[in-house]
Amino acid sequence: EIAATVEAMLAAGGPLTGRHVLVTSGPTHEPIDPVRYIANRSSGKQGHALASAAARAGARVTLVSGPVNLPAPPGVTVRPVESARDMLAAVEAALPADVAIFAAAVADWRAASEAPEKMKKDGGALPPLALTENPDILATIAHRTAGRPRLVIGFAAETQNVVAYAQAKRARKGCDWIVANDVSAQSGIPGGVMGGDSNQVHLITADGGEAWPPASKAEVAERLIARIAAALGERESES
Amino acid sequence: EIAATVEAMLAAGGPLTGRHVLVTSGPTHEPIDPVRYIANRSSGKQGHALASAAARAGARVTLVSGPVNLPAPPGVTVRPVESARDMLAAVEAALPADVAIFAAAVADWRAASEAPEKMKKDGGALPPLALTENPDILATIAHRTAGRPRLVIGFAAETQNVVAYAQAKRARKGCDWIVANDVSAQSGIPGGVMGGDSNQVHLITADGGEAWPPASKAEVAERLIARIAAALGERESES
Repeated sequence: EIAATVEAMLAAGGPLTGRHVLVTSGPTHEPIDPVRYIANRSSGKQGHALASAAARAGARVTLVSGPVNLPAPPGVTVRPVESARDMLAAVEAALPADVAIFAAAVADWRAASEAPEKMKKDGGALPPLALTENPDILATIAHRTAGRPRLVIGFAAETQNVVAYAQAKRARKGCDWIVANDVSAQSGIPGGVMGGDSNQVHLITADGGEAWPPASKAEVAERLIARIAAALGERESES
Repeated sequence: EIAATVEAMLAAGGPLTGRHVLVTSGPTHEPIDPVRYIANRSSGKQGHALASAAARAGARVTLVSGPVNLPAPPGVTVRPVESARDMLAAVEAALPADVAIFAAAVADWRAASEAPEKMKKDGGALPPLALTENPDILATIAHRTAGRPRLVIGFAAETQNVVAYAQAKRARKGCDWIVANDVSAQSGIPGGVMGGDSNQVHLITADGGEAWPPASKAEVAERLIARIAAALGERESES
C-alpha cells in the first residue's frame, strides 16, 4: 500500500493530473423489508480497478460504491452506498467531475414499498412483490444540461447480442461511450466475468465499436483510463 | 489457526465426542435471472461460531453455508450452497446427525421461474415478479419420521413480538428448540445484530423460554453447545 501511495504521488505529473474522475462500482441492494433485499451480482472488481488506475494516472478520484468486499484503492475517496437512490444522491453530490464512469451494476427495480416489519409467510398466501423503476443514474447524468461531465461512460452487462444492445443503450442513455461485456456462461472467460478477475469488453463510441482482447480487469482499466486521457487531451486541443 | 486445530484435537475427549453436528449458516441467494437475485441479510457469523464451538467440543461438524465472507472454521467440513433448494439437498445428504442447528437465514420465497436471459426494462413496463414458496428446511427435517436428528434446533429472527412468534414457530415447525433474536433497530445491540458481533437471544424449549444476557456471538455459541451436550447426556441417561 505504501508502494501504491508513492506511485500515486509520483503520478502527480500523470496524464489525468488536475482532473476529477467519478467512478461508480459494485451492486446495489434494494430493501424489501428489514431482512430481505434484491441484489445484482457484481463484485465491484472492474469499478475499483478503474478508480485505482485513474488515481495512478494522477486524477482526483471519487468512488461511489455499493456493498462490496474490496479494500478502498489507495488515494481514492470512497463514498459507500446501498441502494440506487443512495447512489444517485452520492453521484450528484460528487459533481462537478471531468469524467464519470458508471461501472456499478445498479438494480433497475426496487420494491414499490419497503415493509417496516419482516414479512411473514404465515397463512400460506404469497405476498405480491410490487416493483417500481429505480432512477437511471447514467441517463440522468448524461442528460444534464448544466454540469455534465465532459466524458460520460456507461457499462453494459449483457447475456446476448452484446454489441447491438450496447449501441442502442449508448444512444438511449445519451452517454459518450459504452463499455460492453458478455456476462453469459458462454463468454469463454474462465470462471466467468462476474466475480472473476478477467474481462472481455467491447468499447462503443460515436465512431462505432471495437473488440478488446480478453484481459485482466486491471488491464482493461489501464487501457480505458489511457483512452480517457487521450480523449480529454484531444478535446482540449480542439477548443 | 494452528492453535485452533490443536484445540480441536485436544477436544477429542470433549462433551460432543462421537457426535455428528449439522449446522446451517449464512443467507441464501435466490436467482431472478442471470444477474439478479433475492437475498437475506445474514453475515453467517452466528452459524459459523456454532460450528466452531461444536468442533471445539469434540463433535464431527458439517457446516452447510450460503454465500458468506467468512473463513471455514478449523476442523469443520463446509458444504457451500446458494439457494434454499441447494441447502435442503446438502442438509439431507449430510444426515444422519445427532443434532441439527438451522442458523441460516433461508429465503422464504424465490422467483417462480428463473429467466434464462437478463430481463430488460426497455419498453417501460415493469416485469411481474411472481414468487413461489421455498422448501421449509427446518420443518422438513423436524418432521422426518426416519432419521430425524435427536435434537432439531431452529433460529428465529424477528423485529417484533419476538418470544410469542418464536413459541408459535417452535410448535408449527415441530422442532425441539428455537433460538430467537430481535433483529430490529430497537434491539439495543450496538451496531445491530445483523452483521454485528453481538447477539441477544431467547432460548425457547418445551419448558418455556429463557432470556440470555447480551453476549458475543461466540459466547452465545459456547453456551448453546454446552446446553446441547447436557441435553444429549440427559436423554441418554433416561434411556
